Amino acid sequence: MATANSVQFITKLTQKTKLAGARLADKHINLAVTGLSQSGKTAFITSLMNQLLEVNENAQLPFFSTHREARIIGVKRSAQMDVTTSRFAYEDAIEGLSKYPASWPQSTRGISQVRLLIRYKKKSGIGKWLSEDGCLTLDITDYPGEWLLDLPLLDMDFSTWCEHSAKEMRETKRLELSNQVRTQIDKLDLNGPSDESLLQKIAENYADYLKQCQLAGFQLLQPGRFLLPGELAGAPVLHFFPVSQSQLNMQNVDLNKLHKGSNIALLVERFEQYKQRVIQPFYQQHFKRFDRQIILVDCLGALNRGYHSYHDLQKALTWLMGSFAYGSSNILKRLFKPKIDKLIFAASKADHITPDQQSNLVKLLDSMLRDARKQLQFEGVVTESTLIAAIKASKHGRTKIDGEDIAVVQGVTADGQNLTLFPGEVPMQCPLPQFWDKQKFAFPQFAAPQLKAGDALPHIRMDQVIDFMLADKLQ
Amino acid sequence: MATANSVQFITKLTQKTKLAGARLADKHINLAVTGLSQSGKTAFITSLMNQLLEVNENAQLPFFSTHREARIIGVKRSAQMDVTTSRFAYEDAIEGLSKYPASWPQSTRGISQVRLLIRYKKKSGIGKWLSEDGCLTLDITDYPGEWLLDLPLLDMDFSTWCEHSAKEMRETKRLELSNQVRTQIDKLDLNGPSDESLLQKIAENYADYLKQCQLAGFQLLQPGRFLLPGELAGAPVLHFFPVSQSQLNMQNVDLNKLHKGSNIALLVERFEQYKQRVIQPFYQQHFKRFDRQIILVDCLGALNRGYHSYHDLQKALTWLMGSFAYGSSNILKRLFKPKIDKLIFAASKADHITPDQQSNLVKLLDSMLRDARKQLQFEGVVTESTLIAAIKASKHGRTKIDGEDIAVVQGVTADGQNLTLFPGEVPMQCPLPQFWDKQKFAFPQFAAPQLKAGDALPHIRMDQVIDFMLADKLQ
Repeated sequence: MATANSVQFITKLTQKTKLAGARLADKHINLAVTGLSQSGKTAFITSLMNQLLEVNENAQLPFFSTHREARIIGVKRSAQMDVTTSRFAYEDAIEGLSKYPASWPQSTRGISQVRLLIRYKKKSGIGKWLSEDGCLTLDITDYPGEWLLDLPLLDMDFSTWCEHSAKEMRETKRLELSNQVRTQIDKLDLNGPSDESLLQKIAENYADYLKQCQLAGFQLLQPGRFLLPGELAGAPVLHFFPVSQSQLNMQNVDLNKLHKGSNIALLVERFEQYKQRVIQPFYQQHFKRFDRQIILVDCLGALNRGYHSYHDLQKALTWLMGSFAYGSSNILKRLFKPKIDKLIFAASKADHITPDQQSNLVKLLDSMLRDARKQLQFEGVVTESTLIAAIKASKHGRTKIDGEDIAVVQGVTADGQNLTLFPGEVPMQCPLPQFWDKQKFAFPQFAAPQLKAGDALPHIRMDQVIDFMLADKLQ
Repeated sequence: MATANSVQFITKLTQKTKLAGARLADKHINLAVTGLSQSGKTAFITSLMNQLLEVNENAQLPFFSTHREARIIGVKRSAQMDVTTSRFAYEDAIEGLSKYPASWPQSTRGISQVRLLIRYKKKSGIGKWLSEDGCLTLDITDYPGEWLLDLPLLDMDFSTWCEHSAKEMRETKRLELSNQVRTQIDKLDLNGPSDESLLQKIAENYADYLKQCQLAGFQLLQPGRFLLPGELAGAPVLHFFPVSQSQLNMQNVDLNKLHKGSNIALLVERFEQYKQRVIQPFYQQHFKRFDRQIILVDCLGALNRGYHSYHDLQKALTWLMGSFAYGSSNILKRLFKPKIDKLIFAASKADHITPDQQSNLVKLLDSMLRDARKQLQFEGVVTESTLIAAIKASKHGRTKIDGEDIAVVQGVTADGQNLTLFPGEVPMQCPLPQFWDKQKFAFPQFAAPQLKAGDALPHIRMDQVIDFMLADKLQ
């Protein structure tokens, strides 16, 4: 009896160990994809899904090591985690690219999600005895980069935020755009009895000013929900705006001794409510869960728009890198304890330049991130900068112009014309403002390529990005 | 020392009693305003606010007893409870009515809120010794009636809901509208492996079918969020639809023994998630808090649209009265324990008929509510049915036609023409279907009246509604 019991016990133990092993082998990545407006998030996720779903069929992914080792068994879409979040519209995107004429995927205006299950053969090792195959669950979340720009606000009080934002309103290029709202703010009696309706009107004009800045190519725009309010449209939590230090001085306002029921007290209250009721829930429910993030950066678009836009993009990137400053002893660390171990910055739309300019583009992106990145590496986060064309819309070639053999890009313009050109050199770092006075950048925009049935989406370097993001979890 | 202490103690006690009395005197009403689409919610809240804000100035409120007794000291708007909910756009509505030509307030597509503080003199009584004045905080919440129609779903399982909805799709008037989606559902292999993308497509077509029903004058449309999804647009929780009993039988589906991973299992799961993640949060965060509700009903619009529309409105009202069935031992009671003590049904747009037809309109509304109301009264909820014109857009007069002196309505049509007419008799109860074959109703639509500076909004019976809703709390 005792012996039989022992055998039974050992069998059970072995079974349990096997189960635990299998469970351990089921890995999980929470990948966030973000970027400022127009950076190509939807195209990126569409391509990422397409490459993975087509990995053993038509996708061209020579640098994705797990695929090269022929260890991917299969990839399929599965039901996403949160049923109340929008389902990423992959099918619509593919449909748009497959019809004639093809159209670019529609950009999203909030959060959307998708889950992929990747079944793979394990490399030899201890795993061999436990389970031959592994399954990686890949949750991809798409969210507006504008919301990421909000995170550093959690570490600011109203006064610090005002100092930043009121100064920006007075920059040369924004002075004209902010004229109306500045006049309204200047006229506001901060110590007067709080007038909700007036504050709402001014806040709406402040939001309009931000939208005009966006159209003019600015990127560091705040608060993020003023640009994409969603269901908060019309809610009091969005009814605040910055006040300049000089106005505070002139009206004898002491932000440490606020008079209850005054306009300024309500503004400060709203700012704090925005942090508590808007930013914190987003980071608690989403940001905190992310393991890995990819941030798309449209460097070429910013170069096209001129020095102010490029300079502002650089400021925005430095600002949002603050969101990942894990090691610093700030409120973010205490609140979120984020667990991101890999962060990738990718210059998007790399099909708009010739291949010989690609290394310059990566250097340009690197030059934007240099200072902030050092800090991150020190904190143990692996960061990478690269370039991609999620959906390649051009062909590369060479042509003779005036007897000289030069690299060119060939694509179709939005109005259906074939275009062959040398789009110009990409600078390795931000040119001085004077440079722009003499010369402009004009990297082209192309129409979406036609996706033929059975093909995977053409791309540049998506395989390297996939390898960096996933391969270590597919061992 | 002891005496001094005692005196001090008694003084403190008296002060405390006074404070407690003052606090008790601060009363609070959570008033919800709802109604199906186009019933006039925004106009109602605009007028309600306008009448109260103008109560001691220009408003005509002879039947508002507290006002008649000259006990209203003042009314002002205050910061609303929930800063993340849209602020009711009162100023915009008044601006639209004040400009030339005046425009009707824009309808809202979600929840909005507003808080009014009503300062009043108390009637003599015990209150006299404690505090002379009282303050009533009136929180008004505007929400789509479509969401109210969702509440009875909490008491249903998927099978019961299907029985109801699949039957409706097959009603004569809806047969044509539901043709496409019915064909798609009928073709679906319920036991087949769950295909999220396919279910999403069919659910989107089901939502389109509901929208077409709405345009065709139907009112009992479900689920409510399919019509007004807000931030749930594209979310899997909205990707379900009803399946007919015959299809379940034909495909040998037993809803009590679902095969995991099948289409039908996913549909049932989504239905349950909709209840848990969409309906319950709304009722927990909003519905549960309401003390009093006003439900606006556009009887005249339904009469204009014909028998099917009128009949469906009646069904919708019976359906939503189920939401207020407090006493029944159902899931709602256990979940919500609602505390509503007054419920008012108001036939809106009563300025579209002549005064002699008003009593008929109330009788018509009563006939729609008769059965369900008995149940409510039995449960101790005071219900009232009445009519209103929140913003009166017509004048009443008399004219001689063919020598006969008849009552007429005078207004301005949407294209600016003066219109004088006798809009017809209002039936006291729903005419038989045959009636509509011979005759149609044609109650007019009028342009918004011009609000002159210093005037309050013209109305019909808003004072009676205000009295019923507020006067008992202003004693």
